[in-house]
Amino acid sequence: MRNPLPPVQWDKDELWILDQRKLPSREVWIRCHDVETVASAIESLAVRGAPLIGIAAAYGVALAARRKDATRESTLEAVERLRETRQTGYNLFYELARMERVVKQRRGRLAERALVEARQIHTEDAVRCEAMAAHGASVMDEGEQVLTYCNTGALATGGIGTALGVIQTAFRQKKVAHVFVCETRPLAQGARLTLWELVRAAIPCTLICDNMAAALMATGEVQRVLVGADRIACNGDTANKIGTYALALMAAYYEIPFHVVAPSTTVDVSIKGAAEMELEERDPRELTRGIPGLARLQGYDVWNPAFDITPAGLIKSFITERGTEEPPFA
Amino acid sequence: MRNPLPPVQWDKDELWILDQRKLPSREVWIRCHDVETVASAIESLAVRGAPLIGIAAAYGVALAARRKDATRESTLEAVERLRETRQTGYNLFYELARMERVVKQRRGRLAERALVEARQIHTEDAVRCEAMAAHGASVMDEGEQVLTYCNTGALATGGIGTALGVIQTAFRQKKVAHVFVCETRPLAQGARLTLWELVRAAIPCTLICDNMAAALMATGEVQRVLVGADRIACNGDTANKIGTYALALMAAYYEIPFHVVAPSTTVDVSIKGAAEMELEERDPRELTRGIPGLARLQGYDVWNPAFDITPAGLIKSFITERGTEEPPFA
Repeated sequence: MRNPLPPVQWDKDELWILDQRKLPSREVWIRCHDVETVASAIESLAVRGAPLIGIAAAYGVALAARRKDATRESTLEAVERLRETRQTGYNLFYELARMERVVKQRRGRLAERALVEARQIHTEDAVRCEAMAAHGASVMDEGEQVLTYCNTGALATGGIGTALGVIQTAFRQKKVAHVFVCETRPLAQGARLTLWELVRAAIPCTLICDNMAAALMATGEVQRVLVGADRIACNGDTANKIGTYALALMAAYYEIPFHVVAPSTTVDVSIKGAAEMELEERDPRELTRGIPGLARLQGYDVWNPAFDITPAGLIKSFITERGTEEPPFA
Repeated sequence: MRNPLPPVQWDKDELWILDQRKLPSREVWIRCHDVETVASAIESLAVRGAPLIGIAAAYGVALAARRKDATRESTLEAVERLRETRQTGYNLFYELARMERVVKQRRGRLAERALVEARQIHTEDAVRCEAMAAHGASVMDEGEQVLTYCNTGALATGGIGTALGVIQTAFRQKKVAHVFVCETRPLAQGARLTLWELVRAAIPCTLICDNMAAALMATGEVQRVLVGADRIACNGDTANKIGTYALALMAAYYEIPFHVVAPSTTVDVSIKGAAEMELEERDPRELTRGIPGLARLQGYDVWNPAFDITPAGLIKSFITERGTEEPPFA
C-alpha cells in the first residue's frame, strides 16, 4: 500500500493523487496519465490546498509534455486547461506561469524540462514549509492552545504545511499544548483532514463546530489563531476558506493574535486589495447533500461561497518563508 | 394523516409529539401515554425549542395525573422526572413549577386540573407568540433582508414562533423581503426545520453555513438579525443555541440590529447574569456522526456545547409579549 503522505507522488511515468474526498475513511489514489485526470482531480477537490493545487497542476503539465505526440502548443493547451480548474487560490496561477515559461523555452527535451520543473516546484514548496514552520514557531510562547481552520498541513502543500506545519513544529518545541480544530463546513476539511493529520502526529486536539469558536474564545482557552491563505493581495487582504473572516473578527474582539501562514507564492502582487479578488462559488449540493430531506425540499436558495476575505487590519502578522512580514507586499 | 403543525397535539387521552429529528424527510409522530415517553422525547430532541419543551412537559404531567393509580405524590414524581430532561432552557422549569402548584392544590379532580392547566399553558404561549410577532414587526422597515438562527417558529413554540413568528408576520406586512437561514450545526435545526417552515409559508429564503454569516454581512445584504432564547438572566445576558454569540459579535461589528425574541417565560429572574447560567454539553456523536470516517478515527476530543451566552450589551432589544424591552428584567 502506498504511504498516504505526500498526497501527490510522481512514480515512474505516473502521477498519483490521494483522493482527499475519501479521507479519513479510506486511502484511495487517483492514478493520472493525462492532464484531464489531473484537472478533474483539482476541480472535484480530490486534491486541494492552494500550494498543493499548484504542485498537482505543475505535474499535470509534465504529464501533458510526456505524451508521445506532445508539442509546445499541446502542452500550452494543457496549461490553459489547468488554469480553468479553480479561481481563487493564487498558487495555481503562479506555478502554471512558471511551467508556461519552461514550456516556451527552446533548449533541451520538453518532456524532461517540464518534469524537472514540476519536481523543483514540489521541492521548493517543501523547503518553504520548513522555513515557515521555523519562523512561526519562533513567535510562539510555551504551552499555547491554538485554534486552526480548514486543512493547512501536509495534505495542503508539498511539505509539512503552512499553519499546520507551524503547529506541528511548535508542538515538538513544546510551544503548542493543544489544538482546537474547526470542522470547516460544508466540506469538513478541518474535521476530516486536519484531525487525521493531528492524530497521526499524536498532537492533542479537540474538534468543534465552526459556530463554537466565539464561545471557545470567551472561555480564555485559545491563545493564538493560525490559518493558511489562498490568495493575498498587496495590501494584505487575504482570501481563505469561507469562515476565516468570522474567526478573525472574533479573535480581534478577544485580542487573540491571528496569523496568516502562507508561502510567497500565495501573494498576488498584481492586485491591490479585496475589491479585486474573485471568490469562487460552488455547487449548493456541497452544502445540502449531508442533510437528510433537503434534496427533496423545494423553494429555497443556497449560498455556497468557497472563500471569504479577511481585511489586512485583522491580521497580526503574515508568516512566510522569509519570516514575519507586514503588508504592503511588493 | 395528522397535520404536522402544531407539533404537540393533545387528542382524546393521548399526547402526540412530532418527531423533529426526522424532519424534513418524514413526518413521524410519537404517541405518548406516559411521562417517560414524553421525557425521552425531550431528552432525545424529538421535541425541542424552549417554549415547546415547556408545553410538552406540562402535558407530560397531565398524562401522569391521568393514570388510574395516580396520586399527588406520583404526579409530583413525574414533575421531577421531567425537570431532569434538559438544563438550559428556562421555560421547562417555569411551566413545571406552574404544573407543580396545580398538582399540589386540593380542589377538584387532579387529572382534570392538570390537563386544563397544560392546555392553558399551550394556549397562553400561542397568544404570547402573536403579541411578540406584532411587536417585532412594528420595529421593522419595509423590505428588510433578515438573518435568523436555529429554529424559532411553530416547531419551537405553542404558536407561530418567537423570532420566526416575527419574520412570518413581518413578511405578510411586506417588511421582510428575504430570510437568510444559518444551518445551525451540529443538528442543523436551521437547515432542516426553519427552511421547512419558510418553504411552507412561501417566504423567499437562502440557506448558508454558520461560518458564512460574517461574509454575508460584509456584502451589506443583511439589515437585521432575529434570534430566540433559551434562558435570559435579569441583566439581559442570553443563553441560546451555540453560535448565537458569534452572530451577535459580527452584527455588532457591522452595526446590524440584533434582537432577541422570547416570551417572558424564558426570563429567569433568579439569576443575575451569565456567570450563573448552566450550559448543557451534549454527546460528541451529535457532531461527528455525519462525517464519514470520524467514528473510527481515534485520538481526538470533541467539544459539543448546546448553548452559548450572548452578553446583554450586544443585544439591541428584547422583543417579548409585552413589547420591546430593555434589561434589567424583574
